[in-house]
Amino acid sequence: MRIVAALGGNALLERAEKPDADLQERHVTEAAAALAPLARDHSVIITHGNGPQVGMLALERDADPALTRPYPFDALVAETQGMIGYWLARALRDQVPDRDVGCLICMTRVDPADPAFANPTKFVGPGYDEYTARALAAGRGWTVRQDGSRWRRVVASPEPAELLELPLILALLAAGSLVICAGGGGIPVVRDAGGGLRGVSAVVDKDLTSALLAQATSADLLLILTDVPGVFNGFGAPGAQRIERATASQLLGDRLPAGSMGPKVDAACRFVAATGKTAAIGRLTDAEAICRGEAGTTVLPG
Amino acid sequence: MRIVAALGGNALLERAEKPDADLQERHVTEAAAALAPLARDHSVIITHGNGPQVGMLALERDADPALTRPYPFDALVAETQGMIGYWLARALRDQVPDRDVGCLICMTRVDPADPAFANPTKFVGPGYDEYTARALAAGRGWTVRQDGSRWRRVVASPEPAELLELPLILALLAAGSLVICAGGGGIPVVRDAGGGLRGVSAVVDKDLTSALLAQATSADLLLILTDVPGVFNGFGAPGAQRIERATASQLLGDRLPAGSMGPKVDAACRFVAATGKTAAIGRLTDAEAICRGEAGTTVLPG
Repeated sequence: MRIVAALGGNALLERAEKPDADLQERHVTEAAAALAPLARDHSVIITHGNGPQVGMLALERDADPALTRPYPFDALVAETQGMIGYWLARALRDQVPDRDVGCLICMTRVDPADPAFANPTKFVGPGYDEYTARALAAGRGWTVRQDGSRWRRVVASPEPAELLELPLILALLAAGSLVICAGGGGIPVVRDAGGGLRGVSAVVDKDLTSALLAQATSADLLLILTDVPGVFNGFGAPGAQRIERATASQLLGDRLPAGSMGPKVDAACRFVAATGKTAAIGRLTDAEAICRGEAGTTVLPG
Repeated sequence: MRIVAALGGNALLERAEKPDADLQERHVTEAAAALAPLARDHSVIITHGNGPQVGMLALERDADPALTRPYPFDALVAETQGMIGYWLARALRDQVPDRDVGCLICMTRVDPADPAFANPTKFVGPGYDEYTARALAAGRGWTVRQDGSRWRRVVASPEPAELLELPLILALLAAGSLVICAGGGGIPVVRDAGGGLRGVSAVVDKDLTSALLAQATSADLLLILTDVPGVFNGFGAPGAQRIERATASQLLGDRLPAGSMGPKVDAACRFVAATGKTAAIGRLTDAEAICRGEAGTTVLPG
């Protein structure tokens, strides 16, 4: 069986935690231990989020007095692919010593005409008061938006259109390797009119990229792993219940849950609708049980 | 023909330049243009230095008020592999659109008993006066040494012992891809007594790693590319002459040139002695001419 396992950024660094290296290495080790039972028996492709990490790099680079200007987001996403990918690869080698583990730096092509570029929605970095946020926007060319009581920077989150490294991912899988790829949704690039590749300051949703990756690699299961036990009916309200299994159309018929669960449900349903295969959403530590249908929310065709 | 091309850090960012992203992207584009004629016709593996980039990240991370403690060097090397590898891969795809280009995050295993750990020699980061340097050393656990009139941090530079991703590099080459790997000499890791992998704060010399990589991938040519036209007899003195070709024993019989040329000559001679194949050292922009023996310094067996 081939499985694409998408690890949420919050599974690697909890919201209240400092982005210290040792803390992240500990979480990554726990993630590798949770994935190991699957990795021993199946062809497994692992993707990961990078929200907290790319936010840290953006702030550090902005504050660096040695630079003329901050770095664009494509370069920062590439750095997080290297760092998180290394930690994951090392931890997986320890957990599954019989398998090779390859981490590929990956670009995701997006459409320069994607409407997301005219309407940036993805919050990145810390919150500011409105005055500071507007000053930063003017000085640095940011777009800023209100997020609750604070103001934050937003970047575009265009649709993933093509995985440039797909043939290499398939070559590594064919060689029997576990593959870590498309971290942070992939490094966002566009093709110019002349065909040349150019990085863009955007963040591709890692769950949507994972759905495309699962489809392109003929995966049997898309596993979206996060820090909650599944999709809930009436999440947050008293009596909220985990949905154990549902068809894509049943899930989409409900109002999509708010916050970060929306894109996960969207990604799972897209994969199921495009392939007739199964997706599942649940807690990283339940990965093996989710595969057996004993935990999480299983999304079925129909 | 299979070629390992090792790009010097100074070929990607000149000594006096600010580490801005756009400047490095321009240099990387020039590097890809210089490598393109080789990449069209041969099986090419590209490695790269990361001195200026890892220095930038170390300073930013040290200054980050959100962190409890700075990051270890293994994580920083991994970040530079992602960033530089992405820029190189994108530029090579533009220059050689018919070939796939894969960038692998790579670990280099070193021996925890390597004497380099007791005697750190690799300068990293900026220079300080002696008082400041000793205060930083005491506060951060650094080792510092005098470098000319300034004091700088030094880290261990152990010998590369094993390339953990070698089977994956070979799988990508077999699939017809150009491969970017082992950036910055590879992420330094050791195996603990129990067999587990652990990152270490060290920097493996990228030319020595490239020599090992060339040997392990049965390369026909190791090409060490930098910002000078070759190895010189009496470098820096009036009448200094480029050595056009020499055997490894002739080169090693001379006093090794000072500065960064020493490890390059050492790496070239190791590869030639171990394999009976050819190595060459020269300017990145001369890459194609060096392959034809019309530029640079060719190192022959014997």
